[in-house]
Amino acid sequence: MSFTVEAQRVCFHSLDLDCGITLSDVEVAYETYGTLNADRSNAILLLHAFSGDAHAAGVSADGQPGWWANMAGPGLGFDTDRYFVICSNILGGCRGTTGPGSINPVTGSAYGMSFPVITISDMVRLQKKLIDHLGIEKLLAVAGGSMGGMQVLEWTVAYPDSVAAAIPLAATARHSAQQIAFNEVGRQAIMADPDWNEGDYYSGNPPARGLAVARMVGHITYMSDASMRQKFGRRLRDKSVFGFDFSVDFEVESYLRYRGSQFVSRFDANSYLYITKAMDYFDLAAGKSSLAGAFDRTKARFLVLSFTSDWLYPTYQSLEIVSALRSRNVNVAFCELPSNYGHDAFLVDVKEQTEMVRGFLNSVYEDLYS
Amino acid sequence: MSFTVEAQRVCFHSLDLDCGITLSDVEVAYETYGTLNADRSNAILLLHAFSGDAHAAGVSADGQPGWWANMAGPGLGFDTDRYFVICSNILGGCRGTTGPGSINPVTGSAYGMSFPVITISDMVRLQKKLIDHLGIEKLLAVAGGSMGGMQVLEWTVAYPDSVAAAIPLAATARHSAQQIAFNEVGRQAIMADPDWNEGDYYSGNPPARGLAVARMVGHITYMSDASMRQKFGRRLRDKSVFGFDFSVDFEVESYLRYRGSQFVSRFDANSYLYITKAMDYFDLAAGKSSLAGAFDRTKARFLVLSFTSDWLYPTYQSLEIVSALRSRNVNVAFCELPSNYGHDAFLVDVKEQTEMVRGFLNSVYEDLYS
Repeated sequence: MSFTVEAQRVCFHSLDLDCGITLSDVEVAYETYGTLNADRSNAILLLHAFSGDAHAAGVSADGQPGWWANMAGPGLGFDTDRYFVICSNILGGCRGTTGPGSINPVTGSAYGMSFPVITISDMVRLQKKLIDHLGIEKLLAVAGGSMGGMQVLEWTVAYPDSVAAAIPLAATARHSAQQIAFNEVGRQAIMADPDWNEGDYYSGNPPARGLAVARMVGHITYMSDASMRQKFGRRLRDKSVFGFDFSVDFEVESYLRYRGSQFVSRFDANSYLYITKAMDYFDLAAGKSSLAGAFDRTKARFLVLSFTSDWLYPTYQSLEIVSALRSRNVNVAFCELPSNYGHDAFLVDVKEQTEMVRGFLNSVYEDLYS
Repeated sequence: MSFTVEAQRVCFHSLDLDCGITLSDVEVAYETYGTLNADRSNAILLLHAFSGDAHAAGVSADGQPGWWANMAGPGLGFDTDRYFVICSNILGGCRGTTGPGSINPVTGSAYGMSFPVITISDMVRLQKKLIDHLGIEKLLAVAGGSMGGMQVLEWTVAYPDSVAAAIPLAATARHSAQQIAFNEVGRQAIMADPDWNEGDYYSGNPPARGLAVARMVGHITYMSDASMRQKFGRRLRDKSVFGFDFSVDFEVESYLRYRGSQFVSRFDANSYLYITKAMDYFDLAAGKSSLAGAFDRTKARFLVLSFTSDWLYPTYQSLEIVSALRSRNVNVAFCELPSNYGHDAFLVDVKEQTEMVRGFLNSVYEDLYS
């Protein structure tokens, strides 16, 4: 069966935000894979993590594989032969959906820091508009890892009637002080760069050095001590003895510098600020009696996965979700999968995850529609 | 008994470095506490961690407590009523000992990046000169945490006849890829700051923003997820609702920004570069058959301590040291102490540590000299 990546855009007239502001002319970049069935019951919404985009599956026109190309596609965990899979770039992003780098229709120039501070729930509100636009009343599943998992949780709470199943991976119901701290370092690195210029750099040089440093910090937190040891150890880069200078000595230094500078070419520094802020603000229990109370109206079934070596979103955070769900008698399956890959595991170490997701989606679909 | 802090300096004519260069006119800032006994058998050398200095114990003339004031003093773990305790600022530092901010006697201006890249073994070679200068043939003990612990290990290998006992705390025999990575992020943050100016900033503005970001990253790694949750949680700073802007929302942000900017006033950015490089280069097993082989000539007894929540220098790294020592039949005691304080535990959570150190020093001294 042929596999087509449908890259599309849609523009919504307005979007109400948690901060009280209404944003107008909000564009959404999204892709779809597979075919929506006649009763529109086979739609799955994938929700990307911090630096992801709408290109989840397959290969784009310019040859780039999707960020979850190993999980979504024909015969894969999110089987595009069976399901209609959707992925959109998040609000505040820089990959096609309206964000701080977009043109403010009122002023005719880029928003920059005049872009309103957004939340995970704002992102999900925009996704709901997209799903409505596609004529889908109820999603078979929402699924995503990391910040994608936060959106999954928000979906089940904000739109309990619109989601049959939820798959949050390596996620949390609220950012811890340590998670906020790592994000704050990234923001400070960007804002310390003179080229950031209070966010007004779209007609000049972007804050490349600050953004690269922010990304380097992020990369360390996405890996594990063990995976870094396996991948780099203390191996030197293109030398057999120390250089006794401040050029690159170790492979791991070279890797981080490369990933940092590479990131600059595909990501907007202001989006970094806004999206990390949205993650830090996220607290599913805020305004509720408890985390369990947040799930009072939730009807979805859950598959919650965490990974042994993920120290950025540790298993105890997934267990808090599971515990809260169970206390509201929500149907939830949980597994901590063994992996050395740290937080990145949900993106790279997908063998067991694939089996879990496939089985879960099968059973949800059969129970509902067979 | 009165407790006097003796802050002193001594200048050595030259110091041979691992990189092949000989440094001339090398000054050392050091402090001593307590009294050297007649047979010079009660001297203990404390070795400071990355951002420490010679001021380990008591209160300085300007009212500052020493970095180990809770461990070294009358009646404390390192009992200055019994022992003569010495602490010197490390080579490459910025707190009195020669480093990149010192005046190069040849040029008459600050070294900056013309300062040679130094190693842990260079630091220890300079400390040996100080001990010789003080007329001490054999130290009762060398003790220190983190990078101080690396110096402890180096002492027992480089000068096996000069050390009776060794106490490396929260230490490692070599930096892992993850440890190198965190240091590299700090270096890149500094070097990304235009005020760094290739290290030539001593007559202008220091790279304050870059150094602050570097310190913020460091601070996160010194704490634990649990201690940050206890200390900050998701508490807001001077507000009851989110600001929906990029000023400070959370207490943890405020704390990190404060600690970052505070650090700038007492630490030199170039020292940050040189000292982290020395830590990354450190590998006790380099040039040896194995880590155990490094201890072939070691005669000291060891007390090795690690802390449960220390994820920057995890217990497995202490166990590698213990295992190597035992394979050479070295007398070694090991304990993993329970603590929530992360890597900082050796500085702050000193109750159990005190008992361990006191008992260990007692028994070493009595076995040798009673």
